[in-house]
Amino acid sequence: MRIGAIEAGGTKFVCGIGNERGEIRDSISFATEHPEITLDKVISYFKDKQVDAIGIGSFGPIDIRHGSPTYGYVTTTPKPGWENYDFLGTLRREFDVPYGWDTDVNAAAFGEATWGAAKGLSSCLYYTIGTGIGIGVYSEGKLVHGLVHPEGGHVLPRRHPNDDFAGICPYHGDCLEGMAAGPAIEARWTLKGHELPVDHPAWEIEAFYLAQSITGAILLNSPEKVILGGGVMQQSQLFPLIRDAVKENLNGYVSASEILDHIDEYIVPPGLGQQAGLCGALALGLAALRTTK
Amino acid sequence: MRIGAIEAGGTKFVCGIGNERGEIRDSISFATEHPEITLDKVISYFKDKQVDAIGIGSFGPIDIRHGSPTYGYVTTTPKPGWENYDFLGTLRREFDVPYGWDTDVNAAAFGEATWGAAKGLSSCLYYTIGTGIGIGVYSEGKLVHGLVHPEGGHVLPRRHPNDDFAGICPYHGDCLEGMAAGPAIEARWTLKGHELPVDHPAWEIEAFYLAQSITGAILLNSPEKVILGGGVMQQSQLFPLIRDAVKENLNGYVSASEILDHIDEYIVPPGLGQQAGLCGALALGLAALRTTK
Ligand SMILES: Nc1ncnc2c1ncn2[C@@H]1O[C@H](COP(=O)(O)OP(=O)(O)O)[C@@H](O)[C@H]1O
Ligand SMILES: Nc1ncnc2c1ncn2[C@@H]1O[C@H](COP(=O)(O)OP(=O)(O)O)[C@@H](O)[C@H]1O
Ligand SMILES: [Zn+2]
Ligand SMILES: [Zn+2]
Repeated sequence: MRIGAIEAGGTKFVCGIGNERGEIRDSISFATEHPEITLDKVISYFKDKQVDAIGIGSFGPIDIRHGSPTYGYVTTTPKPGWENYDFLGTLRREFDVPYGWDTDVNAAAFGEATWGAAKGLSSCLYYTIGTGIGIGVYSEGKLVHGLVHPEGGHVLPRRHPNDDFAGICPYHGDCLEGMAAGPAIEARWTLKGHELPVDHPAWEIEAFYLAQSITGAILLNSPEKVILGGGVMQQSQLFPLIRDAVKENLNGYVSASEILDHIDEYIVPPGLGQQAGLCGALALGLAALRTTK
Repeated sequence: MRIGAIEAGGTKFVCGIGNERGEIRDSISFATEHPEITLDKVISYFKDKQVDAIGIGSFGPIDIRHGSPTYGYVTTTPKPGWENYDFLGTLRREFDVPYGWDTDVNAAAFGEATWGAAKGLSSCLYYTIGTGIGIGVYSEGKLVHGLVHPEGGHVLPRRHPNDDFAGICPYHGDCLEGMAAGPAIEARWTLKGHELPVDHPAWEIEAFYLAQSITGAILLNSPEKVILGGGVMQQSQLFPLIRDAVKENLNGYVSASEILDHIDEYIVPPGLGQQAGLCGALALGLAALRTTK
């Protein structure tokens, strides 16, 4: 079985070929440009690869509502050329195969639930903390779509007592993404995340905001695993800070041994590491193939 | 078809008999006492009614994890006699029928999705704002359970600028429930909710807290409908205040016409009114019957 996988990010695209065991055999990566240029590269990559299905985890917002006339489109993005772009339709005209189509973070959540840190579980949350903050939601064995799709990065947290940074989200100012994504760290400290020492107060503040969102998401959805990925989470000193803050926030209220006694195995990095996104797209492609069979 | 329904609240129990169209033909209600007394009343009500299945929406926390040794139990409640009480097992020993078993708010969400305000949709949130605050989560056509079950009432909101009330949640102080459930309103204003005039500043503050939680839940789960029930929501002036605050919080970020243009039909009271809980239990019983057939 040959499944095509596309991790369609706002900064870069990764395309690959994988199998039903989640093994990626081949992949390429290129910068995200105008959609015509970018999709041309995608199409030439898959041209002679004879894939049985293709899975796509895409940056958004995107239309993932089955039956919608713009299903498969990138919708309201400010990225030049991508607004109202028929991403899926463009591929369909080239390759007549089953398609899986979801957000980048939902794809990563699905990849982790299929082969990674949430393998065998029926729920997890996948956070990416990078240029933006996105949350993929997998509940009761299904990816959550709903009205549009989860946009959990824009929740409004309480302010850290030692933080007077205004926040940089163009919609909300001091929402989670505006306070804690990579560019917010850089704007607050005038240093990029990887330039800040591991004992810098930045990380306690960063953990404070992320932990608030995670606490809220645990209370609302009761996920069996919380997976934190993206560039900022390369700072592995964040994990213990976040775990402690989540426990402090919950204050024993959710009496699950997974949280009270084993939080080190509950809030974790992606089991698939840097491949969570691409493996997630692969898992979407595989699921699409199985549905049509 | 005769389905038994039990709305098991911390204050009162309602038992009824209904059919597959969501019609309740008969019901009784009594105060919640020690479990032995209470379950005796439940059992004598259903004794000669020859139900084909029973659905239960229960106060919690409860164990709803299939396969758990304490599945069907009420778990860590401070209510005398109810801690670690085998609610479902007690009924099973009397009536050998299929059982549906979930939280009171999940049941209400399911009832609303089956016959009420979210009929035909595959997702909704059901809030109860009463003695406590609970949130039922229905996503992708399924009730969300996860690790324990949703406990969304205990999320930590930002403080209203004109509010210095400390909050009364024994776990978190100023969590949503500690700031906005009925007893919190009473503690803050030394008047019960129904004694406060409709133009009292209490309601703007109340809406502020509820809207924050709703905003966060919309961002995380993207529900197709948000249903607000419970005693406090009898104050119907809260609805426009909440809708306005949610729109202000989102600030156009979620570009769905349901929110931008039709929020009056998006954040709504229960379609089943006071019967949401009992009809929800009925829907759980019906689903259990269909699964075993
Ligand atoms: N090692 C690191 N430590 C802290 N921040 C990092 C690190 N690597 C990347 N970042 C930050 O993460 C953001 C990029 O996120 P990344 O997940 O790599 O890509 P994207 O979100 O664009 O897909 C940038 O703001 C960058 O400063
Ligand atoms: N009409 C009303 N206006 C405002 N608050 C109310 C009203 N009716 C009940 N409440 C408040 O709601 C709480 C009871 O909630 P209710 O949903 O009726 O029951 P429970 O949550 O115990 O099942 C009490 O704190 C009460 O003060
Ligand atoms: Zn924002
Ligand atoms: Zn609380």
